[in-house]
Amino acid sequence: MSSKNEIKPYKKTADYSYTLGAFPTIELLKSRPEIVRVVYVHSTFTVPEVLVEICSTHRIRVVTADRVIERLSDKENVFVIGVFDKYEDHIQMSESHLVLVNPSNMGNMGTIIRTCIGFGINDLSIISPGVDVFNPKTVRASMGAVFRIRHEYFENFEDYVRAVGENRQMFLFMLTGESQETVLECEKPKRFSLVFGNEATGLSPELEKYGKSIIIPQSDKVDSLNLTIAVGVGTFMFTNHVEITKGQIAT
Amino acid sequence: MSSKNEIKPYKKTADYSYTLGAFPTIELLKSRPEIVRVVYVHSTFTVPEVLVEICSTHRIRVVTADRVIERLSDKENVFVIGVFDKYEDHIQMSESHLVLVNPSNMGNMGTIIRTCIGFGINDLSIISPGVDVFNPKTVRASMGAVFRIRHEYFENFEDYVRAVGENRQMFLFMLTGESQETVLECEKPKRFSLVFGNEATGLSPELEKYGKSIIIPQSDKVDSLNLTIAVGVGTFMFTNHVEITKGQIAT
Repeated sequence: MSSKNEIKPYKKTADYSYTLGAFPTIELLKSRPEIVRVVYVHSTFTVPEVLVEICSTHRIRVVTADRVIERLSDKENVFVIGVFDKYEDHIQMSESHLVLVNPSNMGNMGTIIRTCIGFGINDLSIISPGVDVFNPKTVRASMGAVFRIRHEYFENFEDYVRAVGENRQMFLFMLTGESQETVLECEKPKRFSLVFGNEATGLSPELEKYGKSIIIPQSDKVDSLNLTIAVGVGTFMFTNHVEITKGQIAT
Repeated sequence: MSSKNEIKPYKKTADYSYTLGAFPTIELLKSRPEIVRVVYVHSTFTVPEVLVEICSTHRIRVVTADRVIERLSDKENVFVIGVFDKYEDHIQMSESHLVLVNPSNMGNMGTIIRTCIGFGINDLSIISPGVDVFNPKTVRASMGAVFRIRHEYFENFEDYVRAVGENRQMFLFMLTGESQETVLECEKPKRFSLVFGNEATGLSPELEKYGKSIIIPQSDKVDSLNLTIAVGVGTFMFTNHVEITKGQIAT
């Protein structure tokens, strides 16, 4: 069986993508075995038991294909690749959401997805244009958490607002908003949307009308926090209902 | 004046390194003008006023050198490069520290440095082996915050423990420690060391004897958090003295 020419380097328009590496591939197999087309392994790779088992249960082919792996893995140390069908997905309107407005970095997107799943936020809205959740770089940075999150792209922020309806508290993370309430002291409802802007440009002040702007206290020695860090702190604070006792950020 | 052959791609053994991009270069010029050898700019780049001013005040040469920039910038969109003398640095023993044990990723290291400075932790200990803070990739990911942090490498963890002495509370971020106290409820002293392990292997259980192990609550749907996210949440919680009111991580 020759599968060596089946799979080409990823394109956004393709109907399939792939996981690079053992960990994300096993996550894919555990969470969505039904979408897996084939698993490629390198001849030097000792295939883990769990991978063999899941593939056998779901009749997924495991093919030794060194050249395919070398061609797709882009210089990284990769010994296993899982090819999967891309799928259409929708967020749950009854749940809390993370909302990313125009995210531009695939590594960041992956790290943010992993963080959301880690902190119990299982729904991700992406306001277009935004990077592709199925790009192998995003999939890899997510460590396979992308297969556990529900995601949905919206044409613009207004479409998202319409979709969630009126009974939704939105928190917009911006340093220049009118409300200078911080993530520490602000009241945290049970259901919320946390909104973060683009890596370079942040959130447009125009969006403030849709919710409350809040800030993560930070020293004046940095221009801003890295987007993934802001999302990490924001989601942690909202999912754990923490309250300030004393602030002491050095300036 | 021909400077085109002066600067070679970075080596750890070199006595100089360089900033890639306008933002880190301006940060370098603002925080440590005395170590800057030369600033290279691309002929298509409109040099910002602040850069011209600082260079003029400190008699730093600004040289148009398209080839140098193309050679050093490694495919990234870079139009300005600041070459600087590497320096020996020491942490302040009277301050709180972040301690990274064997960090292996330069981008993570840079993001962590930026996060520390953002949250008011100005001293970074690195337990060897660990990536080079002066590597241009680290410098860039730090957005120049590397020039504002004090850093010091230690041969091993025991050397660090000896250096800080006995009156120091250490918190070791590990999921498998004996103490299952979380970063939410644990008491936070004024002066502390927050210790984080390697990206892939975490902290060795042997280190637990030097302090208290604490965990960041996370769902069982992820294996662990990304190192930068763990550091972000940990440093934020310790620098803001927050207390739990109700935990609700979904599992």
